[in-house]
Amino acid sequence: MDLPKSVIISEEGPREGFQIEPGPIATADKIALIDALSASGLSHIQVGSFVNPKHVPGWADAEAVMAGFTPRDDVQYSALWFNEGGLKRALAFKEKLTLAGFISLSASEPFAIRNLNRDRAGQIEAMQKYVRVHREAGLPIDKIIVMAAFGCNFAGDIAPTKVVETVADGLALAEEAGIDVRNITLADSMGWATPRRVAAAVGAVRERWDGLRITLHLHDTRGQGIACAYEGLRLGVTAFDAAVAGLGGCPFAGQPGAPGNIATEELALLCEEMGVSTGLNIDALIEAGRVAEQIVGHRLPSAALRSGTLTAFRRKVA
Amino acid sequence: MDLPKSVIISEEGPREGFQIEPGPIATADKIALIDALSASGLSHIQVGSFVNPKHVPGWADAEAVMAGFTPRDDVQYSALWFNEGGLKRALAFKEKLTLAGFISLSASEPFAIRNLNRDRAGQIEAMQKYVRVHREAGLPIDKIIVMAAFGCNFAGDIAPTKVVETVADGLALAEEAGIDVRNITLADSMGWATPRRVAAAVGAVRERWDGLRITLHLHDTRGQGIACAYEGLRLGVTAFDAAVAGLGGCPFAGQPGAPGNIATEELALLCEEMGVSTGLNIDALIEAGRVAEQIVGHRLPSAALRSGTLTAFRRKVA
Repeated sequence: MDLPKSVIISEEGPREGFQIEPGPIATADKIALIDALSASGLSHIQVGSFVNPKHVPGWADAEAVMAGFTPRDDVQYSALWFNEGGLKRALAFKEKLTLAGFISLSASEPFAIRNLNRDRAGQIEAMQKYVRVHREAGLPIDKIIVMAAFGCNFAGDIAPTKVVETVADGLALAEEAGIDVRNITLADSMGWATPRRVAAAVGAVRERWDGLRITLHLHDTRGQGIACAYEGLRLGVTAFDAAVAGLGGCPFAGQPGAPGNIATEELALLCEEMGVSTGLNIDALIEAGRVAEQIVGHRLPSAALRSGTLTAFRRKVA
Repeated sequence: MDLPKSVIISEEGPREGFQIEPGPIATADKIALIDALSASGLSHIQVGSFVNPKHVPGWADAEAVMAGFTPRDDVQYSALWFNEGGLKRALAFKEKLTLAGFISLSASEPFAIRNLNRDRAGQIEAMQKYVRVHREAGLPIDKIIVMAAFGCNFAGDIAPTKVVETVADGLALAEEAGIDVRNITLADSMGWATPRRVAAAVGAVRERWDGLRITLHLHDTRGQGIACAYEGLRLGVTAFDAAVAGLGGCPFAGQPGAPGNIATEELALLCEEMGVSTGLNIDALIEAGRVAEQIVGHRLPSAALRSGTLTAFRRKVA
C-alpha cells in the first residue's frame, strides 16, 4: 500500500464551526479554542471570518478574536473574507495573519445562482474584480477552490469534466492577472463525495494538468468523509482541510443537523495509524475538540472525540 | 476501480443496540424496529439474544420479541446465544428463526482472559463443547468469528499472523467435529481497524487459505469504520455486518459513548453510490433508524440518519 509519507492538514474549525452555531459564542471562548488548537501541532489554522456582521452575526467580533489569540511562531493563521470591505479589515492584522486571497468557483452553476446569485459568467466577473483588488492590496492569490466538486443539491451529480472546466476557468483568471496558481482545492460542499467520485475528479484534473497540488476539502454529511480522505491518500493527495471535533455543519438546504467538515482528529488518526505523518498530537487535538464541545454546549459529531486515540492502550500494554 | 457487483449486509442493530442501552426498552418497541427493518430490503436481521437475564437484563424479553415480530419470507432472522441454556430457548423458535451456531475465538488472548476468563486453550475447549452441543441439537455451525482481529485494548496491535493462527484454530475445531466451515468473520471488537490493517489481515487469511468467505464486522469507534469497509470492498469482500443508525456501542473499557457498529445506512450509501448493489432501500433504512432513535431516546451516531440519501435531490433535479 503506497501512501504519502506525510500530509498537511489545515484546520478550519474555528471559522467554519462558530459561524453555524445558533447561539452567540463568547469572544474569549473563540480565543480559547484557537489557543488550544495552536498547541496541537497544526501548521495552519483558519481563525475567523471578516464577513458582514449583518449577514453573519457570529463573526461580528472578528477583530477582537484576531487581537486576542496568542500566536505561535510555527503556525500560520489565516482568515476568510469575500469582498473589499472584509479585505480591509483583514489587512489590519497583516502582521499576525498570513493573508492570501483565493479564486472560488462553483462546478455547479445552479449552486452559484442559488447561493451567490451569479451564473458562470457572473462568477468569473466577480472573481476578476476580487483578484484585481487583492493584487492592488499586494496580497497573493494562492489557490483555486472548486465548490460542489462532487455533487450538488441543486444540480445532482457533477461530472469530472465540469470540475476540469471550473479549474480551467480559475487558471485562466489567474493567467489573465499574470499570476501563477498551482493549488487546487476540490470541495465537497454538500456531502456528495464517495471514494469513486474523488478518484474520478482528482484523476480528471491530473490528466489535464501536470504539477497542480490538490487539496481535498471533504464534508462528512453522509458519513463518507474519512473513506473519501482515504481514497485521497491512496491517490497521493497530501493536503486536506478539516475541522476539530467535526465543528461546523452543512449550511445548505435539506440537511439540518448533519455533520460538516470531516473531524481533524479522525483524519489524523486515519493517517497516523497507517504511517502517514501529520505532525499532529492527536491527544492534544482531542483536548481542543473537548474545549470546542464545551463552548458550543452540544455534542459534536466526531467519534474519535469520545473514543480517544490508541496511545493510552498501547502505553498500558508496553 | 474494481469493486464487487453486490454485497450482503447483515443487520445487527436490534441485538447489539438494545443490549447496551442503559434504560429498559419496551418489548413492543423492539418489535417495531424489527418490523421496520424487515421493510428495508435486508436479507438478514439478527433480532435478539438468548442470554442470561441476570447478566443482560435488556434481553429478558427475548421470547416475547421473537414471538411478536412479523416475519417476511425473504428475510432470514437470527439470534444470538452463548451456551446450552440459550440454545434451548432459541430452539423454541426454530420455525421462525434461522438457527445456527458459530465458532468464536479471540485473536487476542488478553481480551479472552479479560472478557471470558479463558486463555487460548480454554477458548478452544469451550468451543469444542459448544460445537458438540450444537451438533447434538442438529444445528449447523456456519462461521468462525475472529474477535479483536485488528487490535485490542488489552494487547495492543494484533499481527495478521495472530489472525491466521486464530482462523487455523477455528478450522481445526470444525474439522475435528467433521464439519466444513467456509465463512470467516473478522471482527474489529474494539475499534482498532484501519484500511491498512484490514488489508493486512484479509490478505494474510487469503494467502493461507483459498475459498474462505470473509465477512467484515467493523466498528466505528474512532470514525474509521466506513473507510475500512471501503478497503474491504476494494479487496473484494462481499459480506458485512452493520447496525442501523449506528445502534450499539463499544462495551469494552475506555470508550464510553463511542459509536459501536458501523451504521447500516452509511455502509449502504457507500456501496450504492459506487454502484455496488446491496438490495437495500436506504430511505426505508433511514426511516427504521429514526424509529430506533425515538425508541432509545437519544441521538444515535449515524450522520446519514440526519442528512438522508441523495435520492430526493436527484429527483428534484431530474
